[in-house]
Amino acid sequence: MRRVAEPGEAITFAELRRATRNRGMPLEALALDVTPVGLHYLMIHFDVPLLDEDSWSLRVVGNVESGLDLSLADLRSMPQTSHVVTLECAGNGRTLMEPRPIGQPWGLEGVSTAEWTGVSLRSVLELAGVGADTLDLVFRGADRGQQLGIEDEYRRGMSLDDAMRDELLLAYEMNGRPLEPQNGAPLRLVAPGWYGMAHVKWLTEIDASTDRFDGPQHAAYRYRQSEDDRGEPVCRMRPRALMVPPGVPDSSTRERLVEPGQVLIRGRAWSGSGPITQVEVAVDESTHLADLDPAPVGRWAWHGWSWTWNAEPGEFTLTCRASDATGDVQPIDQRWNLLGVGNNAVQQLAVTVS
Amino acid sequence: MRRVAEPGEAITFAELRRATRNRGMPLEALALDVTPVGLHYLMIHFDVPLLDEDSWSLRVVGNVESGLDLSLADLRSMPQTSHVVTLECAGNGRTLMEPRPIGQPWGLEGVSTAEWTGVSLRSVLELAGVGADTLDLVFRGADRGQQLGIEDEYRRGMSLDDAMRDELLLAYEMNGRPLEPQNGAPLRLVAPGWYGMAHVKWLTEIDASTDRFDGPQHAAYRYRQSEDDRGEPVCRMRPRALMVPPGVPDSSTRERLVEPGQVLIRGRAWSGSGPITQVEVAVDESTHLADLDPAPVGRWAWHGWSWTWNAEPGEFTLTCRASDATGDVQPIDQRWNLLGVGNNAVQQLAVTVS
Repeated sequence: MRRVAEPGEAITFAELRRATRNRGMPLEALALDVTPVGLHYLMIHFDVPLLDEDSWSLRVVGNVESGLDLSLADLRSMPQTSHVVTLECAGNGRTLMEPRPIGQPWGLEGVSTAEWTGVSLRSVLELAGVGADTLDLVFRGADRGQQLGIEDEYRRGMSLDDAMRDELLLAYEMNGRPLEPQNGAPLRLVAPGWYGMAHVKWLTEIDASTDRFDGPQHAAYRYRQSEDDRGEPVCRMRPRALMVPPGVPDSSTRERLVEPGQVLIRGRAWSGSGPITQVEVAVDESTHLADLDPAPVGRWAWHGWSWTWNAEPGEFTLTCRASDATGDVQPIDQRWNLLGVGNNAVQQLAVTVS
Repeated sequence: MRRVAEPGEAITFAELRRATRNRGMPLEALALDVTPVGLHYLMIHFDVPLLDEDSWSLRVVGNVESGLDLSLADLRSMPQTSHVVTLECAGNGRTLMEPRPIGQPWGLEGVSTAEWTGVSLRSVLELAGVGADTLDLVFRGADRGQQLGIEDEYRRGMSLDDAMRDELLLAYEMNGRPLEPQNGAPLRLVAPGWYGMAHVKWLTEIDASTDRFDGPQHAAYRYRQSEDDRGEPVCRMRPRALMVPPGVPDSSTRERLVEPGQVLIRGRAWSGSGPITQVEVAVDESTHLADLDPAPVGRWAWHGWSWTWNAEPGEFTLTCRASDATGDVQPIDQRWNLLGVGNNAVQQLAVTVS
């Protein structure tokens, strides 16, 4: 059973225990094209496994012509490829939902961008000769624990069509250096465009299955309205824009204090379904088109935007709103669901100008 | 005014906003001598400044023979020194206090160890010719915001005697690489043995003052029993042992599930006042001496310890307790104070063996 907080219910200690383990990206880091390793958001379901990369290997098993058992050296000897990828937790924005689904209690900090380097997933699947009648590739991580009453390693399935796309990566480097443990060392899946749950870390096995795979990590990521509603699976990142909070914060409340005058409002926007085409910024009810940077640092990376505000003394609410090339536009209001996933309602930021 | 939660009061949204910005070290990382950059705990009072290291410089001003304005290249041309240092937030353990002081709501994750490299602080103070009648060196960071109603940059004073000690560092590298923004790039103070608030990040100025310095960052770090109590300043880390949580977690509750049999219980212990001399592990009421590793990786680094538990089915509470060479021993119970600092009461970890 998934629990939803009572109206007005405060944060629980169980939620806090998650918040102090998992790590958001402070939104001022939206100013950077690529997020430093130590600022990248982290969402870890169980514990961080500390794997010995000399004894580690990746097995490719199941519906394949020849099973594989690849060392890190084997993978490093294959053609190398890189993508700059914006990664967002599907639960980003969860605590802004009303009523609040209980889970990792993100505000809006569950997003970052990094350069991932490794081998194309397709090249490994082709090397193994994955059967054309494969329905799901099942990716197994080394992280283990109990979720929804089931103890297992973290496992996610992905359809053969999705897995064979050009941009899927088995990554052993992040921002030009070997992965650190918390980012999935020695190898993780990177699935550009998808929410974070698909990017399986600490990969040990890829199992080509002629069945559809289901498990706790699929049940946990569906757009469901109630316990009786099976809902649709969570896949690609919905469009979203976020802004660098202007001015300076109060350290206790995190409220923003801004000086009057010309204030550069800037941020990033992204969508897993297509390029960003427009960002609107609003000051209370007054809406303006932001300038988009000439291009993002990569097809799968967030797109910078900016707008200059002539700020006069007062209290204001700033919002920003992205549209993508498929015509999808961020909603003003939440699209509530039981698991608190995919909440891409526009960011609202209260500022005091004085 | 500092607020203390009502008995049983749940976590507030303002506390949560801090928890999702600041970053704890997941306790399984206690297995590592040195914490990877991306797992090091972070406690940032305002915003992370993104400084241009080419235009940045460190000014040394005030009661000095010759003021200095040092570029990063200047500092890198001076003799280099390194220390492996365990750093702990003074507020670590705050949410375990009853009643709970409102602040950054740490469980026990506000600690990490890194190798810091830079120049000795004393060499820079000697280069400037700091006057012998100096009372405090005032370290100024580039991070700015409002705290306790005062808007300022982060500033902390340290007495000349403390600042002239051998081990104080102006660090430009962490774990062998230039500092990332969140760790204080391009330069931070490292004050081995002290709680984290003394290790001023994003350093821009050292001001030699013939007065004692006081400010919000001093008011916030005192052992006070009430608003009327001025209290003693928070300085060195009190002794503490923490353990790697054994077994596997439940992803929602973080409760630990352990298999029966021989279970290696291990962790780290540290104190800012002297070497660790003993760690005791208890399973409920049954107490055992842990084996200390031969030596820590450095005088200022945590000390590894271990003990093998023959776990039988049941529910147990594990605790660990450190003593240091000054004779200081961790208390079983909290030593409560208004700001929730220095709570080194022993860790209690509930585990289910089945």
